[in-house]
Amino acid sequence: MQLARRILNLLKTDSGAWEPYYRARELKEAGEAVVNLTVGDHDIPTDPAILAEMSESASRGRTGYSVVSGTTALRKAVATRIEKRTGVPTGIENVVITCGGQGALLVSHLAILNPGDKALFFDPYYPTYPGTIMAAGGTPVPVATSPRRDFRPEGKALDQAAVGATSLLFNSPNNPTGTIYPQETIAMIAAAAQKHDLWVISDEVYDTQIWSGEHASIRALDGMQERTFVIGSMSKSFAMTGSRVGWLAGPAEIMNALGELLTVVTFGVPEYIQDAALYALNRDLEFEPKVAEPFRRRLSVALDVLRNQRVVSLVPPMGAMYLMLDVRATGLSGRDFALHLLEHERIAVMPGESFGRSAAGHVRVAMTVPAEDLGDALRRLASVAGELARNRSATAAPAAA
Amino acid sequence: MQLARRILNLLKTDSGAWEPYYRARELKEAGEAVVNLTVGDHDIPTDPAILAEMSESASRGRTGYSVVSGTTALRKAVATRIEKRTGVPTGIENVVITCGGQGALLVSHLAILNPGDKALFFDPYYPTYPGTIMAAGGTPVPVATSPRRDFRPEGKALDQAAVGATSLLFNSPNNPTGTIYPQETIAMIAAAAQKHDLWVISDEVYDTQIWSGEHASIRALDGMQERTFVIGSMSKSFAMTGSRVGWLAGPAEIMNALGELLTVVTFGVPEYIQDAALYALNRDLEFEPKVAEPFRRRLSVALDVLRNQRVVSLVPPMGAMYLMLDVRATGLSGRDFALHLLEHERIAVMPGESFGRSAAGHVRVAMTVPAEDLGDALRRLASVAGELARNRSATAAPAAA
Repeated sequence: MQLARRILNLLKTDSGAWEPYYRARELKEAGEAVVNLTVGDHDIPTDPAILAEMSESASRGRTGYSVVSGTTALRKAVATRIEKRTGVPTGIENVVITCGGQGALLVSHLAILNPGDKALFFDPYYPTYPGTIMAAGGTPVPVATSPRRDFRPEGKALDQAAVGATSLLFNSPNNPTGTIYPQETIAMIAAAAQKHDLWVISDEVYDTQIWSGEHASIRALDGMQERTFVIGSMSKSFAMTGSRVGWLAGPAEIMNALGELLTVVTFGVPEYIQDAALYALNRDLEFEPKVAEPFRRRLSVALDVLRNQRVVSLVPPMGAMYLMLDVRATGLSGRDFALHLLEHERIAVMPGESFGRSAAGHVRVAMTVPAEDLGDALRRLASVAGELARNRSATAAPAAA
Repeated sequence: MQLARRILNLLKTDSGAWEPYYRARELKEAGEAVVNLTVGDHDIPTDPAILAEMSESASRGRTGYSVVSGTTALRKAVATRIEKRTGVPTGIENVVITCGGQGALLVSHLAILNPGDKALFFDPYYPTYPGTIMAAGGTPVPVATSPRRDFRPEGKALDQAAVGATSLLFNSPNNPTGTIYPQETIAMIAAAAQKHDLWVISDEVYDTQIWSGEHASIRALDGMQERTFVIGSMSKSFAMTGSRVGWLAGPAEIMNALGELLTVVTFGVPEYIQDAALYALNRDLEFEPKVAEPFRRRLSVALDVLRNQRVVSLVPPMGAMYLMLDVRATGLSGRDFALHLLEHERIAVMPGESFGRSAAGHVRVAMTVPAEDLGDALRRLASVAGELARNRSATAAPAAA
């Protein structure tokens, strides 16, 4: 029996880059203590008040089918939030509720890609991007960025890749690099989208975790509303990753059509979860800082640790919950360094290669443990890196002599 | 800006057959009392004990990302259930957890259809079938059945349609007709699938609602395990429609690949919902009859009412929660009869045409109100039909004379 090409291609993309992640899980299951800095899942659970609201809604009988595009109240709250944060007039006709940010990534691409269409995204990238595009029948095309430019997109590379492309997906504040695209980068992307008639999918799920600089939403730029989808989510901002509730905002005349897609993809999001999300959004100033502040403290500790060594260098982390560390001085790939660190120190990080070629020789650290533990783990990481670098130059020196 | 062909095709399929459903909602929102017999949503909420388990799991901190293919415990419980009900050896390697039955419909078709591939299903059909196939890039091909044969598939029609097709999706016990395919029909389908090398997707979400006859799972037939996906769900059997939790069972070597698809479609089902589903499945003998029995009583009342008139005839309802009524004696289409009934009696039913051409001149009644209310609604429905039929013959007679 023959599987579809899309799934065979999806399987082929597995480059072994996730090996340290799976190895860490094996070690944990075998009872070993591992400091897990791999995936972007909070170390705190969802706030009890949000869960109480969910439970109360379910008990009130909100357990039947929801309207597929989302409850009117939640769509309204999301629209208001977007309008408040970006200044762009936004109504419920611009918003549908999705199965988390990932559900929004999928339906937006399903709505715009015909088979084989070129769909762009910047490398390094969130690991589901190419698979999402393949599932929607498109051809994923990574556009390289460089650590020399803090992984910010460059106009020339984008302009070349955009010829004949259908869409461009990007993520700022960025996972995995922690960079935030400055206003001029966003303007460059908007200009390229208009020049090449691209759809833009702007993944803004980290827009509440900003440590320096400012987040600009591309939908607010002139002429962009008609071609832009914005993805948001309760996952990162409200520590609701497991609840799978997010949204897609875009042109009103298209959101109605998206309802037809949502019908066949998920048939709606549980109404009691939407009620909990509404409760949380209505108290954003209470919940969001509680979720974001620990990461700010951890980042400060991390920067202190990394300032005291010279082997590992760091892409300036402006937002989100990750550190992208350059470990090329060790002579190892990100994957080999991550495996080495796991075997010798029982610290699990993600190889940069999991996020594309542009992040080769890097590792991504999720700041998902308390500040002291993070500081300790980074000290040990830097020490391992230093040792590897010294051994390397010791080996290299005689050879050069 | 241009949308993808799949979504334009999806929008084109809207034939207006859902008009009575939307009209009923308008009337309700305007404050009118409408007896709603349209969609298959329970009139009882999810059992409080199941909700308490969900709430308890969330409070225990099960609010982070779940393993994308489902928790080991729930996959194991589903595998055990399938093995117990069908006799087919089934392990967790054969099962993934999905966003309800609809999520399983989508990922199974995404896994097997290349662009343009012919995907078969029997008409009348559950209304998301063609859209699901289109979203997966396939070409939906309905295979007609006839009310003269109680909407059971016939070998000749299937054999003709199957030439060059990739897959066949079917649903027994059937929504919308209430028929259950007998063993010889299942065997005929299996033979056609093997002859034409088709994937089979067997939607068995009503397998706990059997009023007469016996349900046979096609996966249990010789040579079918390697080419069959079975879809199950907590929705109908445990009155958990809104919670969006179901499963797909199939060949082990493919389920692993499906994990890659689930990653990009939903990124998993909330763990606290999976825990609630596990709790319910472990007490299936307690919950399932509680959910199914009201429908059995309602069916009995409905049959009594319909026995006392001769205008509306009924496809024998062997399972599921629907009645498929033949109203052709009124001279109206299903849609026009449904609109007439709604305007004059404030009773909302679905036109047969919503479910395909084969159910033209029928209406589907969801038995989702208490038995007495259902009996009363059917008496009024029969009376309206009788009046229409009498007027028709009164008008027709002079013309014929």
